[in-house]
Amino acid sequence: MTSITTSDLLGALNWRYATKSFDASKKLPPETLDALLESLALSPSSFGLQPWKFLVVEDPALRAKLRAESWNQTQVTDASQLIVFTARVTLDAADINEHLAKTAAVRGIEFSALDPLRQMMTGFIAGKSDDELFVWNSRQVYIALGQLMTSAALLGVDSCPMEGLSPAAYDEILGLAGSGYRTVCACVLGYRADDDKYAATPKVRYPRERVVAVR
Amino acid sequence: MTSITTSDLLGALNWRYATKSFDASKKLPPETLDALLESLALSPSSFGLQPWKFLVVEDPALRAKLRAESWNQTQVTDASQLIVFTARVTLDAADINEHLAKTAAVRGIEFSALDPLRQMMTGFIAGKSDDELFVWNSRQVYIALGQLMTSAALLGVDSCPMEGLSPAAYDEILGLAGSGYRTVCACVLGYRADDDKYAATPKVRYPRERVVAVR
Repeated sequence: MTSITTSDLLGALNWRYATKSFDASKKLPPETLDALLESLALSPSSFGLQPWKFLVVEDPALRAKLRAESWNQTQVTDASQLIVFTARVTLDAADINEHLAKTAAVRGIEFSALDPLRQMMTGFIAGKSDDELFVWNSRQVYIALGQLMTSAALLGVDSCPMEGLSPAAYDEILGLAGSGYRTVCACVLGYRADDDKYAATPKVRYPRERVVAVR
Repeated sequence: MTSITTSDLLGALNWRYATKSFDASKKLPPETLDALLESLALSPSSFGLQPWKFLVVEDPALRAKLRAESWNQTQVTDASQLIVFTARVTLDAADINEHLAKTAAVRGIEFSALDPLRQMMTGFIAGKSDDELFVWNSRQVYIALGQLMTSAALLGVDSCPMEGLSPAAYDEILGLAGSGYRTVCACVLGYRADDDKYAATPKVRYPRERVVAVR
């Protein structure tokens, strides 16, 4: 595995900002988009349950409808890609069994060998309400959001995380009723417009000692 | 800004796994640790509010106590660094004012010029309960967790995200009562032990079409 340097890392993280104005004429190369979708699929999640689906919305008509439910922010239609992050509304035995069946297949072991793990996980979710499970699943989705934005910056791709949207309206427009998934947030990917004034605006961060403490 | 290649990115993301057994003799070089703490400080957050504190727990006695509240997982004491992720328990006018004062200072503008933004943010948080604000702040913390794990992998540093811990016990051990922050999760950083059996275990992920859909 080839590591990068700390200055490459920090260069990318400082270059990144929440891009508001995208160049609508610039599209992600297929290989770049594929790598970023793979970064989503490779995101860590609790117990490895991957309680998410990522919807890449390409249809211009859908994107126009979604923009109307996102404070009319132009990046919803102008960015190269709009990715809607959805989380499982709950977790049940079927989620656990599907994950463990995949685990057994990948590792070449019997499903029954994972029984202690299955029982532990089943007990864990049994102690939580649907609301608590959705909160938990939504947190995992934000790990994927972080991994995506960091990965994009390193590839020189601009992004903007979006919480300013109506999850219920997104669910309806995207036909998620009954799917077992609900919209949590979104993220657009693409390339900043030449005239995006925020590109040249210094990043606002508290000093290190305000947010990091040593014990 | 120097971009990396997609194969460097995917190489790092595939190399990463939730490391369970760390080589306790291997410590992060200071420059590497500093870059990873900077990746936390540079993490995106909603409105840029940075509703978090990251506690780097170096004291062995504290780490032993925390391990007892983390299902006795060895990585709490054996990894090079233990970072506890805490979120603001709520958000109020002081949080907004502090952020906007910093924004005004960085951009060299009057605080009053940010009044429309201040009013919008104030209205936004006024509509939410403390519980909802903590849920929201906690989600932001998971962006930082994602950014940290991705950054670590790219620098060749192993990590393990940890939710299997008692947040209340962590709060007590770390003296967080009355601080306005509460433990959400943790992440350890360091180098995998030669005998960590999970290092050679294939990653378990659903196929792309199971988690990514195009609309």
